[in-house]
Amino acid sequence: MDDNPLRYEPVAADGAARAGLLWTPRGVIATPCFMPVGTRATVRAVDSADLERLGIQVVLANTYHLMLRPGVEVVAQLGGLHAFSGWDGHILTDSGGFQVFSLEPKVDDDGVTFRSTYDGSSHRLTPETAVAIQADLGADIQMVLDVCPPLPSSTQVVRRAVDRTADWAARAADAFAERRREGSTQALFGICQGGVDEALRAESAERTVAVGFDGYGIGGLSVGEPRHQMLPALAAATAVLPADQARYLMGVGDPRGLVEAVGLGVDMFDCVLPTRFGRHGTILTSAGRVNLRNAVHLTSDEPLDPSCGCAVCARYSRGYLRHLRMVNEPTVARLCTLHNLHWLGELVGDARAAVLDGRFEAFRAEVAAVWE
Amino acid sequence: MDDNPLRYEPVAADGAARAGLLWTPRGVIATPCFMPVGTRATVRAVDSADLERLGIQVVLANTYHLMLRPGVEVVAQLGGLHAFSGWDGHILTDSGGFQVFSLEPKVDDDGVTFRSTYDGSSHRLTPETAVAIQADLGADIQMVLDVCPPLPSSTQVVRRAVDRTADWAARAADAFAERRREGSTQALFGICQGGVDEALRAESAERTVAVGFDGYGIGGLSVGEPRHQMLPALAAATAVLPADQARYLMGVGDPRGLVEAVGLGVDMFDCVLPTRFGRHGTILTSAGRVNLRNAVHLTSDEPLDPSCGCAVCARYSRGYLRHLRMVNEPTVARLCTLHNLHWLGELVGDARAAVLDGRFEAFRAEVAAVWE
Repeated sequence: MDDNPLRYEPVAADGAARAGLLWTPRGVIATPCFMPVGTRATVRAVDSADLERLGIQVVLANTYHLMLRPGVEVVAQLGGLHAFSGWDGHILTDSGGFQVFSLEPKVDDDGVTFRSTYDGSSHRLTPETAVAIQADLGADIQMVLDVCPPLPSSTQVVRRAVDRTADWAARAADAFAERRREGSTQALFGICQGGVDEALRAESAERTVAVGFDGYGIGGLSVGEPRHQMLPALAAATAVLPADQARYLMGVGDPRGLVEAVGLGVDMFDCVLPTRFGRHGTILTSAGRVNLRNAVHLTSDEPLDPSCGCAVCARYSRGYLRHLRMVNEPTVARLCTLHNLHWLGELVGDARAAVLDGRFEAFRAEVAAVWE
Repeated sequence: MDDNPLRYEPVAADGAARAGLLWTPRGVIATPCFMPVGTRATVRAVDSADLERLGIQVVLANTYHLMLRPGVEVVAQLGGLHAFSGWDGHILTDSGGFQVFSLEPKVDDDGVTFRSTYDGSSHRLTPETAVAIQADLGADIQMVLDVCPPLPSSTQVVRRAVDRTADWAARAADAFAERRREGSTQALFGICQGGVDEALRAESAERTVAVGFDGYGIGGLSVGEPRHQMLPALAAATAVLPADQARYLMGVGDPRGLVEAVGLGVDMFDCVLPTRFGRHGTILTSAGRVNLRNAVHLTSDEPLDPSCGCAVCARYSRGYLRHLRMVNEPTVARLCTLHNLHWLGELVGDARAAVLDGRFEAFRAEVAAVWE
């Protein structure tokens, strides 16, 4: 990947934590950044105009879901994901590996066969078809197809996942190089695996870097293991990853985990947490989680978070939003999602500001005092 | 009601159709106008900021639902409906009569006893308590408690409803006069009944006008009867209602019915049609209804209505919205609701413009050519 269309520009560092700018053919992403999950080419309960108003920089979309519904050919015929979803900001597609490996698929050296959760039909992904499908989807950043074992898994299972992920990384890079020769301006990120075994994490990161990608994902973490196991494994990977390229911790978006990972040098995050929480009435606030259903909010004229500057907090009281939640009015899912996305975006922005100001450790400690 | 806080200013007439301005202490409403239904203090699937962007002038809220959830005292404690729902535009509350009479309640001369659809608990409304509850809800316009018989009903049943509605109207007016002496700036509309019997309609309108209100609702229509029965009954009422006050046809919002009613001199409308249709993927367009689920839209890059100027049509294709509908993404309910509300608002605005231009009959015929 000699002509990397991405350029990671370091802006400041504070310990291992870093603030940067990720330049792409589409524009620039200030890092660290949080990417809302738009599984089916929409972030659940909100629309692209909402994301614009929130100042979202990058949205994730899901290859597994989109190849099944509406089908990659439909998205391609409608101009690719950006035109399809009316979203001019950045898009990153995951390869579908994470979803597929949660379905007890049949894995062989060549690829993986799985059944659709929509209609039971059989489908197959290989490193090469994952590249081809994501090329048709047309996101700004592709992810390689990796092997993502559940945790806990035996060392043997994790070792085999690391080996297969490395083999598949090389094949994906070859397939992608062909696309780039044909003029593609997409980027491709490798993914390192290795479970919570620090040696395997370091090895997987080294082998992924040896293939060479436009950026690096750290996958297979935040899948149920305790944080005291996750963070050393993450550190083992980030210690190996190139300082001049972006690092993306896949599936992490809880406030504490996110900030701890920034402290280990991670630049990019995605997670369903703020959107799923929002749909279920769990609110992220500066005082911690708030359950909107709690009767204490019945006549509260306070906003969701008194220190929040989002449009929802500017307009609506907890009492009103609780009412909407209790009678299952659909709009409350959107309003709580908007607040949670704004809140988490502010948290990441605050983390970036703390790095720029050289006070990241104090910031980390503040977050750790509120969030388990 | 000598010191009517509302003032209906006629602007133009074309036959019986009229364009006007309804001045209130809060501002002004251009008529004819359509009021989206915000049953539980929210128009389903959209929020108050959406309604502002749509240019909505008045929203309906529902006394029956709000007295049960969250309870009128909660709304009052949070500052009344405007503060509660974060909506500075006009609000009209219906009395709850229509909902209550769909629940097979026990009616006597004094009032009506009914069971909550939320928890089965027993509740009672009288003309006086309906005024008191709506005073606490704090909308700009109240509606009297009326007796709304289903159609078809025997002449005897409709006659009794007319009599009781007239008795209750006088009691509501007395109770409301007390509020006004205490400084209330709310308005109160009477409601005429009479089923599809033109003589009873005229009689009910006369008796309601004899009591004297700030404006007049026409209730008990659009409850299943064919349009060729509805329109003569409506005409019998509007022929009696004062020309210098607003007329509100309750529960009508289908494009054809609405335009025909404007032709008979109606100024205000409400209906769940555009919002309910939107949530279910039925789209109002200049070419008629479109079912978004239809496979013909799979790869359509057309907007919902090529001649629509709404934000949804500006950004999203039918193909994308169909995808969202087929995978049940919650945001599609909002997007289709936004389009339908914009579209119906434009239709009513076009009707007003046609009256102003003296070409209402041609406009009516155009609508009748598309909408049954």
